[in-house]
Amino acid sequence: MSLKQHVPWTQSPLIINAPMGGHAGGDLAIAVTRAGGLGQIGAVYDMNELASHLAKVEQSLPRHDDLLPVGVGLLPFVLKLDEALPVLERYRPAVVWLFAAKELEDYAVCAERIRSVTPMSQIWIQVGSVAAAVSIAELCKPDVMCVQGIDAGGHGFEKGAGIISLLPEVADALTVAGHGGIPLVASGGITDGRGAAAAFALGAQGVVMGTRFLSAPETQLHPAYRKAILAARDGGQNTVRAKLFDELRGPNIWPLPYDGRSIVTESYTEHAGGAGIEEIRRLHAEGLKAEDGGYGLDGKGRTAMWAGTGVGLVKREQPAAEIVEEVRRQVVEMLDKARSRL
Amino acid sequence: MSLKQHVPWTQSPLIINAPMGGHAGGDLAIAVTRAGGLGQIGAVYDMNELASHLAKVEQSLPRHDDLLPVGVGLLPFVLKLDEALPVLERYRPAVVWLFAAKELEDYAVCAERIRSVTPMSQIWIQVGSVAAAVSIAELCKPDVMCVQGIDAGGHGFEKGAGIISLLPEVADALTVAGHGGIPLVASGGITDGRGAAAAFALGAQGVVMGTRFLSAPETQLHPAYRKAILAARDGGQNTVRAKLFDELRGPNIWPLPYDGRSIVTESYTEHAGGAGIEEIRRLHAEGLKAEDGGYGLDGKGRTAMWAGTGVGLVKREQPAAEIVEEVRRQVVEMLDKARSRL
Repeated sequence: MSLKQHVPWTQSPLIINAPMGGHAGGDLAIAVTRAGGLGQIGAVYDMNELASHLAKVEQSLPRHDDLLPVGVGLLPFVLKLDEALPVLERYRPAVVWLFAAKELEDYAVCAERIRSVTPMSQIWIQVGSVAAAVSIAELCKPDVMCVQGIDAGGHGFEKGAGIISLLPEVADALTVAGHGGIPLVASGGITDGRGAAAAFALGAQGVVMGTRFLSAPETQLHPAYRKAILAARDGGQNTVRAKLFDELRGPNIWPLPYDGRSIVTESYTEHAGGAGIEEIRRLHAEGLKAEDGGYGLDGKGRTAMWAGTGVGLVKREQPAAEIVEEVRRQVVEMLDKARSRL
Repeated sequence: MSLKQHVPWTQSPLIINAPMGGHAGGDLAIAVTRAGGLGQIGAVYDMNELASHLAKVEQSLPRHDDLLPVGVGLLPFVLKLDEALPVLERYRPAVVWLFAAKELEDYAVCAERIRSVTPMSQIWIQVGSVAAAVSIAELCKPDVMCVQGIDAGGHGFEKGAGIISLLPEVADALTVAGHGGIPLVASGGITDGRGAAAAFALGAQGVVMGTRFLSAPETQLHPAYRKAILAARDGGQNTVRAKLFDELRGPNIWPLPYDGRSIVTESYTEHAGGAGIEEIRRLHAEGLKAEDGGYGLDGKGRTAMWAGTGVGLVKREQPAAEIVEEVRRQVVEMLDKARSRL
């Protein structure tokens, strides 16, 4: 079954919101799906919370081919599969998006058990290297591979490439390995119709945006965090990848290959300047109690503000549906414009 | 004058070779220009050497509007302008590409003096951040801005973003600052027609490739270096940006904002593992005497092997003209394909 057939309510080009844990809930997923995109919910630990988001979706949107027209993002390295499976079985989302396993083999275990309870749901797996893409294709034949470039905000692979080179190399390597049929969707730095058009030119069949959707009121976000997103400029200079952001509340629980990209914070700057982690954690805990929740502007924040390098292109609050429609329209315009300028 | 009018011998879409110091000489520039691209020569210290490359171009290619149909890359931070100016005055290349100044103001000084000896030559300046793009536009109104993403091989900005977000944000910021008329060309990770098509979709008016041209026999390259380029895969994992590569022969002379991306070498791995710089330099000096010139395969090299994240897409030796023609054709194909798939 083609990607398009599996998400029959979507309009082309396919726009997807990243399943941002703690931020992408039912409201965002509903708005994105209603606008003809693939809306997604990001789960972390709490499967009751996921169930309540999915219940909201079920009340709001018709099923397609017996599936809820949304995706659910799960993190295998912290996932209690026994708690997740009944929720997936009950709601049967169109897509289950897996990201961040301790070992690549864990994706296969996860995928098999999920398929056993909701066989029609597609399994999408996010990768950040060519080697991982080929291994994962062999291990668990995902229905879609989500190729995440180094520009992405939030968690991703500490080492990597932008999608400009990563997506084509993954495509070629999968073809050589006999898995050329797996559709690829792209993420990492895609923030408006220009980046999205570029991803389609690279060969992607869909584009995933996270940072851009932080501007949507449907996304669950502290107002000061949203304010920092709208204020940030020059994303390559004012965001940074670091493991420190996962150390602020205590020891880092993420597997070794991962870190996260955040707006540059005071915690980061002081730590890079030599301040010890205990002192950084103490100041972070204090910052959380401030009115801005530790989400300060202009590098004065203490807590992580996940954002991709495209954050400088996000300048105003905008409903999710408007983002989906605008980017979809711009993709066509940019491709036509590029073609006509040649 | 539009970019296209200034390089009237070129065919659309515009393909440019990066002015790779020590590697891009007259032969490469001639081949690229003959194939309808913009060929460039990369100079470092030796202006006599630059003159001899330009003399070769002059013997091989007709002038256009009194200009030699090639570009010359210069590094302001090491440039002896008094030695460079007579060469530029004598040969009058169509483009002078500036990159890496100690202070942004140095670009203005450089541009003014170059314009005084060869007023018809265009000044192109390479930038890696939005802030630098706006400042440079104000300071010296370059004819073209070369937007280099973090995926680029060789020297560039230590901190930054991929072109997927950088190019659109630079374009918007220049427009807001009243410099929207400056054409942008893109570099960083562009390795084949897919990456090039993506860059045009982003709004670039030309694409610059470095790593890809390392496969061309016209590029000056130790055979073992070329072999390492053709063998490398998974560019995001097997290349790395580091200042270490500029420390191998002695103290780093590059201004603070710059580092370089190389294939991961034994020098890098050992240094990251704690080996002192003196020991690393000693082993590097020894490595240079080996048959492979220190350019070993599979991470066993000692010396820098500049390469972008797209290196995994470079798999065979290929004449420069063939690269130019192939990428030009693929750009059109990829844009048409992307558009028709929507």
